[in-house]
Amino acid sequence: MTRAELFGQIQKKNSFLCVGLDTDLNKIPKHLLNTEDPIFEFNKRIIDATAQYAVAYKPNIAFYEAYGVKGWQSLEKTIAYIPKDIFILADAKRGDIGNTSKMYAKAFFENMNCDAITVAPYMGEDSVKPFLEFDNKWVILLALTSNVGGKDFQNLELTQGGELYEEVLRKSQEWGTTDQLMYVVGATRAEALTNIRKIVPDHFLLVPGVGAQGGSLKDVAQHGMNNQCGLLVNSSRGIIYASQDENFAEVAEEKARELQLEMQQYLSEFL
Amino acid sequence: MTRAELFGQIQKKNSFLCVGLDTDLNKIPKHLLNTEDPIFEFNKRIIDATAQYAVAYKPNIAFYEAYGVKGWQSLEKTIAYIPKDIFILADAKRGDIGNTSKMYAKAFFENMNCDAITVAPYMGEDSVKPFLEFDNKWVILLALTSNVGGKDFQNLELTQGGELYEEVLRKSQEWGTTDQLMYVVGATRAEALTNIRKIVPDHFLLVPGVGAQGGSLKDVAQHGMNNQCGLLVNSSRGIIYASQDENFAEVAEEKARELQLEMQQYLSEFL
Repeated sequence: MTRAELFGQIQKKNSFLCVGLDTDLNKIPKHLLNTEDPIFEFNKRIIDATAQYAVAYKPNIAFYEAYGVKGWQSLEKTIAYIPKDIFILADAKRGDIGNTSKMYAKAFFENMNCDAITVAPYMGEDSVKPFLEFDNKWVILLALTSNVGGKDFQNLELTQGGELYEEVLRKSQEWGTTDQLMYVVGATRAEALTNIRKIVPDHFLLVPGVGAQGGSLKDVAQHGMNNQCGLLVNSSRGIIYASQDENFAEVAEEKARELQLEMQQYLSEFL
Repeated sequence: MTRAELFGQIQKKNSFLCVGLDTDLNKIPKHLLNTEDPIFEFNKRIIDATAQYAVAYKPNIAFYEAYGVKGWQSLEKTIAYIPKDIFILADAKRGDIGNTSKMYAKAFFENMNCDAITVAPYMGEDSVKPFLEFDNKWVILLALTSNVGGKDFQNLELTQGGELYEEVLRKSQEWGTTDQLMYVVGATRAEALTNIRKIVPDHFLLVPGVGAQGGSLKDVAQHGMNNQCGLLVNSSRGIIYASQDENFAEVAEEKARELQLEMQQYLSEFL
């Protein structure tokens, strides 16, 4: 999907919502466990319920890998089921030497036709570039993550000036364009968004951590939005596990709609 | 596998060889492509040919994921086929927030019974710790990688002193013991090994990049070995693709044996 198409979807739906598909057999409603493929069954109903409010879905690959071959099958079916006009983001946090990254790119971009994959920056340029060789596919590079351990290395100060995550933002801009690269920026540090926007004014940012992880959507919109929105805000547990009863899909729809309505307001206020 | 068991294998086989299973359908001998599961068939013959010289196998997960469900099946069969006394190392370079890392740990440690997994450090402590909660399982943390892009971030100088990779070595030692943590250290920078051994004298190091990637085994042994060997040196392409003809397994055996003999010499010289 191109940047223009993504922005088109955001304008059409008045939403920059990404729904995280962290589907866990221990958390989905019990009545689904008797179906042939409970993970896919759950995802299908979540997608049906939320597709009108979401511009992106983010399957968290770990949750599928944890079930081996069967989990991988559920993942492939889920990705195939997502409507074509919705951005699909494989949250895989991959990154390895060139020929290996190329294999990961093949897995997620060619075989599964995802639009984007999250990548860890530690191994540098030649670990990221193989993902950038596919037309209209995106790398979403980890920059500043919202977990407690994020500060262990990302906030280390460099003798050349700035912190490590700022150097990741600066350096990686040389590797691809704003039509190929996005960044992961944790929402619980919304005050850092102003600073981040100085370094990457035009890139899209993927912001996890709104909802269960506790960031403020208004802060994110106010400090992070650019003139093409430039934000994908993810909610996983706050939507998909809002209810664990038989009515889970309806409750997920409500929660997605609430977020979309809030986003609509911020789009008119800050865009 | 425990540290004592691993060292026992090293002494028994006079070898610290890890064979990388980067199995690629475009590179394996053509006559195998007609078998039901060419990737597994190739791995099986490589394992049969090299098991007497190797103390570890390292399947590179990307190469299996690239073939989707079928690749994942080949991976599971391969891991099940490896003899029980050989260390199995999933080269997956994972790392994510706590509940996600836990799912990856489940995939590789519980479902597939690997002994170790490679993990990227960028997200810090709570992304690594879930992998450390399994008895006799290992995290192999990326420290200094041998690819060109490794220097983009790993060698950045910190205002607190030292380079980023050194801080990764220092900080991560607080997260687990020498019975749980190893480090990836690229062999093409063998001169850095002396320095690394000052920071982590007792840990095992996984050294890729001997062979096709070009490091010197003698340098690695001389500068990296500690009193329990403390080294696993990987060769992938130099062994498994040494011949692409029907005799590939015999040639792989020869190449593995050559490396083992060289290692035997260094074990008697430097241990």
